[in-house]
Amino acid sequence: MSIKGFLLSVALLFGSSVLLWAQKTDKENQALMPYPQEITEGTGKFRLNKDFSIYVNAEAHPRLFQAATRFMRRLDSRTGLFFTQHMVTPQSKGQANFSIQAAENAAVKLGMDESYELTVSKDAIQLKAPTDIGALRGLETLLQLVQSDGEGYYFPEMEITDSPRFPWRGLMIDVSRHFQPMDVIKRNIDGMAMVKLNVLHLHLVDDHGFRVESKVFPELTAKASDGEFFTQDEIREIIQYANDRGIRVMPEFDVPGHASSFLVAFPALGSAPGPYSLQRHAGIFDPTLDPTNEDTYTMLDKLFTEMAALFPDEYFHIGGDENEGHHWDANEEIQQFMKEKGLKSNHELQSYFNRKLLTVLQREGKKMMGWDEILQPSLPTSALIHSWRGQEGLAEAAKAGHKAILSNGYYIDLMYPAAQHYLNDPIPASSTLSDKEKKNILGGEATMWTELVTPLTIDSRIWPRTAVVAERLWSSAEVQDVEDMYVRLNGISLKLEREGLTHIRNRDVILRNLVNGRDISSLKVLADVCEPMKGYTRNPEGTLYATYSPYTLFADACIADAPDALVFNQMVEKYLTTKGESSEQIEAYLHQWHQNHERLLPVIKANPVLLEVKDLSLNLSRISMAALDALSGKVDKMSEREKVKWYNNAVAILKESRQQGGRTELQVVNSIEKIIKNKRQYLE
Amino acid sequence: MSIKGFLLSVALLFGSSVLLWAQKTDKENQALMPYPQEITEGTGKFRLNKDFSIYVNAEAHPRLFQAATRFMRRLDSRTGLFFTQHMVTPQSKGQANFSIQAAENAAVKLGMDESYELTVSKDAIQLKAPTDIGALRGLETLLQLVQSDGEGYYFPEMEITDSPRFPWRGLMIDVSRHFQPMDVIKRNIDGMAMVKLNVLHLHLVDDHGFRVESKVFPELTAKASDGEFFTQDEIREIIQYANDRGIRVMPEFDVPGHASSFLVAFPALGSAPGPYSLQRHAGIFDPTLDPTNEDTYTMLDKLFTEMAALFPDEYFHIGGDENEGHHWDANEEIQQFMKEKGLKSNHELQSYFNRKLLTVLQREGKKMMGWDEILQPSLPTSALIHSWRGQEGLAEAAKAGHKAILSNGYYIDLMYPAAQHYLNDPIPASSTLSDKEKKNILGGEATMWTELVTPLTIDSRIWPRTAVVAERLWSSAEVQDVEDMYVRLNGISLKLEREGLTHIRNRDVILRNLVNGRDISSLKVLADVCEPMKGYTRNPEGTLYATYSPYTLFADACIADAPDALVFNQMVEKYLTTKGESSEQIEAYLHQWHQNHERLLPVIKANPVLLEVKDLSLNLSRISMAALDALSGKVDKMSEREKVKWYNNAVAILKESRQQGGRTELQVVNSIEKIIKNKRQYLE
Repeated sequence: MSIKGFLLSVALLFGSSVLLWAQKTDKENQALMPYPQEITEGTGKFRLNKDFSIYVNAEAHPRLFQAATRFMRRLDSRTGLFFTQHMVTPQSKGQANFSIQAAENAAVKLGMDESYELTVSKDAIQLKAPTDIGALRGLETLLQLVQSDGEGYYFPEMEITDSPRFPWRGLMIDVSRHFQPMDVIKRNIDGMAMVKLNVLHLHLVDDHGFRVESKVFPELTAKASDGEFFTQDEIREIIQYANDRGIRVMPEFDVPGHASSFLVAFPALGSAPGPYSLQRHAGIFDPTLDPTNEDTYTMLDKLFTEMAALFPDEYFHIGGDENEGHHWDANEEIQQFMKEKGLKSNHELQSYFNRKLLTVLQREGKKMMGWDEILQPSLPTSALIHSWRGQEGLAEAAKAGHKAILSNGYYIDLMYPAAQHYLNDPIPASSTLSDKEKKNILGGEATMWTELVTPLTIDSRIWPRTAVVAERLWSSAEVQDVEDMYVRLNGISLKLEREGLTHIRNRDVILRNLVNGRDISSLKVLADVCEPMKGYTRNPEGTLYATYSPYTLFADACIADAPDALVFNQMVEKYLTTKGESSEQIEAYLHQWHQNHERLLPVIKANPVLLEVKDLSLNLSRISMAALDALSGKVDKMSEREKVKWYNNAVAILKESRQQGGRTELQVVNSIEKIIKNKRQYLE
Repeated sequence: MSIKGFLLSVALLFGSSVLLWAQKTDKENQALMPYPQEITEGTGKFRLNKDFSIYVNAEAHPRLFQAATRFMRRLDSRTGLFFTQHMVTPQSKGQANFSIQAAENAAVKLGMDESYELTVSKDAIQLKAPTDIGALRGLETLLQLVQSDGEGYYFPEMEITDSPRFPWRGLMIDVSRHFQPMDVIKRNIDGMAMVKLNVLHLHLVDDHGFRVESKVFPELTAKASDGEFFTQDEIREIIQYANDRGIRVMPEFDVPGHASSFLVAFPALGSAPGPYSLQRHAGIFDPTLDPTNEDTYTMLDKLFTEMAALFPDEYFHIGGDENEGHHWDANEEIQQFMKEKGLKSNHELQSYFNRKLLTVLQREGKKMMGWDEILQPSLPTSALIHSWRGQEGLAEAAKAGHKAILSNGYYIDLMYPAAQHYLNDPIPASSTLSDKEKKNILGGEATMWTELVTPLTIDSRIWPRTAVVAERLWSSAEVQDVEDMYVRLNGISLKLEREGLTHIRNRDVILRNLVNGRDISSLKVLADVCEPMKGYTRNPEGTLYATYSPYTLFADACIADAPDALVFNQMVEKYLTTKGESSEQIEAYLHQWHQNHERLLPVIKANPVLLEVKDLSLNLSRISMAALDALSGKVDKMSEREKVKWYNNAVAILKESRQQGGRTELQVVNSIEKIIKNKRQYLE
């Protein structure tokens, strides 16, 4: 065994993920994401030393001076050069070697100009943008470019011309199902800024809690938030924080369904007699506002008027999704009302409701936005459609003349791989929309629903995958090399952690909790090949977990794109499709997994909370052994009878290894099955 | 080599700290800290399952219901049992198997009754306390007691009778030098509650910034905070959060020295003409309020009146330290004033100043508190003395009839070992105070000065060492076994992380940043034997670092009590003093360190920010090799001439290895020197 081979196998034995991250490339270091529109690379290097200094044209918006100061501190944290310049202010002198020029100061709103030009030469850096917001985007690009060599840190010579493909690039955070406090919101705004997202959509109200203070109706949070909500001062702080980073904040008040929290505070506005209580499980619930009760509109008018003033953004999201109408169907007065008004379906009744709200919002200078369900022929085209149900709904809205954005395919809470979100395009190559209709599609939003996450784990569900959604929405449609994306994603993931996101660090926290100690290595080997059950399967019927269940268990330490599985599956694919490929690295992984069960078993025994993954670990060990038998040639030397027996046994344990454990699933079973079924001639 | 030996050496090769944490004992698991006054252990087990439920007597304070609910969720996070009880409320039924009875509801203030009695039997748990605060303390003890065996989780049968030795057990956080935002404060309050500390002392004002909103004088934060301060709403939120956990919040407004931030906003109140600016480095600065200017008192009267209302605690800290009087000496008018008033020294002038403030504070119903320097014969005994200068000052104050607390010896920012703080007793066995005088000594405070920390690193300076200060102040004076303390400290450290403290996780974040990747193993091997330079040596003259310097470098990832050094030094001590002790484990460490340099070198080369620790790593490798030569007997086989040469060389590299690198120092040099000097006969 070569030294390299030895190191590899020992690394595999002890440091899960070591292999993946050891294969660090320049591309990962550079980690430009989202990838700019145009790059011209040079050969020179702008070298960094403590005299590095920044100048911003004095007329620029204060937010640009603050961002430039933050840029300097962030770069200093990375390089340890102890830059002498403290703050970048309008008084900072013009002879600085990094010059930032923003021609105009922009309002943070839909359609703001976010383009910029960045020129790095040996002696100077220039960032020019039509607006200060464009300059903010350019600063993030530059920070991603820092490199090092034997002489120190530098920026590589290059010219970048960049601008976004779509103007609406959002992240929705559901703060109702599990409340997410200020620090979560702020650090995620930082992450959004790093990948050039520009809309934070706060899903503030749902069946699980009303999460924003109303001074007009204080009972909303007093009765229906369990004490967890944003004060209006905090909302203002969030908006300012986001605005400083060129990010809009759009509120959503989901009506008429998803209304349990509304109705806990105002049961008389419900479509059923009540009483109502906050939901503690996941699902679609019946409590619905009564659209035939004038008091409903009186209340919503006052509330929306108050909230329209609190949230300065032009758009106001009224939700409108998943109203199954059970309470409407069961209410005779509502049925009578529909007859009188000639409303033929619940859908038409909801349209009636929406039009009343539209009047309020228009009076307050807002544009209405809602999920697919609000789309109706009678809906004015000024309303923006937010598509959660699919590309078809998006296209339908665009054809009907509505502006529209996509979230279907960007449900990051469902734990699908980054690649899947990455290849989901708001305007796919196959689109049959006209050019004019295509212009109605403004972008999309990653949606972070929070049934199964807490502040401890939410970052690991949002990041790094949201970065690939950000790239899909910013970069050219042609940028779609998945392998390349994953390499850069590793780099951006580390950069996100550096700026405060907790997606990497908190995994180890959970693992340390589970092993009740510090040596998490054997548990991490398992966690690095397991992923939480996907889609809605982790929480069957929505009832396995309550909002107050523990989210500190094995599944919560597992992430989408389990890192070792990702690498292993790529290796196996290559091995099986390319002749002459060595199986050495594959075998090293298999040895590690085979042996890991023996290391993990005493840890499981000492920690009953881990019993749920015992079979998972055993199965991983067993299928790894079977695959080793196949790869090592051991099987080839067996008698025919033994071969058949081996094969049948392997197929049986493969089946067992598809069982979930701790609400997670092994992600290497398909690849191992391919290795084993390569030997299926033994059966024939 | 035995399997065990092999595993050990491989573990040492790859997982720094593995050894330390692998030696987990029941005591560490149990990790009671602070140790209760009386424990009677039984043999039964109260087994936990999902039906575990809590009852609190209905008249108890809401904070006890909230704490009981949090207790349930924290225990569920640890055990993963999915307890069915959601909230503990006055409506919760009495047949619960854990019953909490608080006889009275207490105000959170000095002298509140914090005692409790906890009885765990096989079938039931009872927590009884004279006050709800005592019950809060008992809940923390119970949570530390959870254990597991093959059948699951349980609480061991026992009776605990507990109460604190001292009524004042504090943590001071300096939020002026580096501002610490809400999330830092809140999670540290959680940590304080876990180890039964009961005073959060906020050092709100210093030369680097004024950190609390004044509505009367908004210019204080507008001009002198760089935008980093607590709003009054936030202060109220902190106070409520602390109060919910039985913790007082005491503000400090440091006057008349440390006044740069005061004087940036109000230069006319200074003892020198100004202009003034916020300090960006560490040190003792001259800006001082003018005690001869009536406007000074008018301003402080209004400010203190406002702040006395904002902070409900009985005590109000006016600082008073480190006024060197340079600006008083240089000001002729002040000199003239002193002559007129018959004030013979700056100390007397400051006493004059203090007495004027005392009038204000007394009017507002507050007791004055200040650092040693305020002690003067003319000071009324109602003023509490906070001793930072030493045990003598503390004793002097107590003899003069003042209540007093100790912080000298509890300066956790100085990076001394936990043992040193642990053995520092406010009333040492050698004390010559009378019993009555001893009663004047109320306790102490760990002090977290923030010249060199940011929100990223502050937890790793506060924790886990503050837990040993908490034990010193709560537990019996006889509890002072250092080895036992370190074992329990490992356990409590993990428990603190579980509740949100970032002292463990953020070390890895910094290391990942430094290596620009995920495989931090070789750098961590080095970091686990290095400690930041102690006392005030890391930041010579206070000028090496500015407030805006990077605090994301190697020293910031290092901690006091470097974990591998702690274990290694214990091993060497035992080896050298106990005959027949094996050197196998010592050699395993030395091999690891010797080989680590080769692993770390390419990482350093790829990351210029690590160049500062290259020599440190090389020196560790070299002295480890020399020690291995000594232990392995290789030296014994040398010629006499070679032996002398070896010895002289070893002494020379030992000397080099005492050089700092990256503002840290190797912590195994003394032990390795002992191993080598064991061979000093070669020189004789």
